[in-house]
Amino acid sequence: MPQNQSKIPRATLKRLPLYYRFVNSLKIKGIDRVSSKTISEALDIESATIRRDFSYFGELGKKGYGYNVESLLEFFKTEISDSNNIHIAIVGVGNLGRALLTYNFSIHDEMTITAAFDIDKDIVGTKVGKVTVKHIDDISSELQKQNINVVILTTPGSVAQSVSDRLIKADVKGILNFTPARIDVPNDVQVHHIDLGIELQSLLFFMKNSSN
Amino acid sequence: MPQNQSKIPRATLKRLPLYYRFVNSLKIKGIDRVSSKTISEALDIESATIRRDFSYFGELGKKGYGYNVESLLEFFKTEISDSNNIHIAIVGVGNLGRALLTYNFSIHDEMTITAAFDIDKDIVGTKVGKVTVKHIDDISSELQKQNINVVILTTPGSVAQSVSDRLIKADVKGILNFTPARIDVPNDVQVHHIDLGIELQSLLFFMKNSSN
Repeated sequence: MPQNQSKIPRATLKRLPLYYRFVNSLKIKGIDRVSSKTISEALDIESATIRRDFSYFGELGKKGYGYNVESLLEFFKTEISDSNNIHIAIVGVGNLGRALLTYNFSIHDEMTITAAFDIDKDIVGTKVGKVTVKHIDDISSELQKQNINVVILTTPGSVAQSVSDRLIKADVKGILNFTPARIDVPNDVQVHHIDLGIELQSLLFFMKNSSN
Repeated sequence: MPQNQSKIPRATLKRLPLYYRFVNSLKIKGIDRVSSKTISEALDIESATIRRDFSYFGELGKKGYGYNVESLLEFFKTEISDSNNIHIAIVGVGNLGRALLTYNFSIHDEMTITAAFDIDKDIVGTKVGKVTVKHIDDISSELQKQNINVVILTTPGSVAQSVSDRLIKADVKGILNFTPARIDVPNDVQVHHIDLGIELQSLLFFMKNSSN
């Protein structure tokens, strides 16, 4: 159905997960159609933006009739991955890595962390949740075996770059960076950075400006 | 200097932390002026948007001369808080809470977690990093004593709402929600949700669309 996926603009892509989650919540409520106005009000995004975004998703709605919830969900699923079962690895099994290994990824049932790596000999070989931690020296073969190319990075910031270099050699194409460090990667690798300092600061900005 | 802080639009507010971090990196490099074009290229935001955003920040630049880095940083600091020293509490000292208590908030030196709460009697009274964990029953008095109104929520999702209700009674005005649950709060309370499922999915969207 989606013919020109690479033409979806970056700004639209950034909103896709929000749309996906909202449309999914409609399905759970048994709603089968939704207007751009309803989405606009729920997500605080302009209607015109929503209509333009959705025009990239193909023929999913009729004018004045709204979008079909089921078709939207189908589209979103194909956008995430060709596979129905996405395996993810975590690198760095400290407190944060341990927390994420047991975190409930509520949005997408088929998205699971099935591999974990560390260098600490007291951690390697232990089981966290359902996953046995492997040594990072085994990462290439292990990722290949499990067909994993997405990694959550929860090492100390001081080794984030050197570990990322190893990940790239292991053919990783996506890194969710939870460390405070910025990492340099080739153009064909996507990095999303969850920067807790930035998130906290952003919250403070909003608090300051709403309390005046 | 900022006269009409409450008039800064939400969309501009969301970009403030990005601006802050970038301008801060310029200062570290010893650069004292920056053009909207440079910021535009670094952050992938249109120049026109940047000029409009910065117009809310007061007289910080001259046409064709760029913005003064020092003045921008001063403005951003006043936007975060009237106080130079921001104390933050964490509620829920499991793996994630423990990780955040020792996380290096690199962006803003004066932003520190100085209080932590839990209900587990094996955790209450222990010290994590520099903070001694208190029982959540003491939260009102403790937050008041430390003048804290920002909380990072790292409880299980199942109790996120009931804990938030207690936070609001303790006069908390900002919650950084790390749980998978959505929480309802009054209008004068700001909630930012870090949803790991959404972040991971967003990364997969980008990977899929860049690899075509």
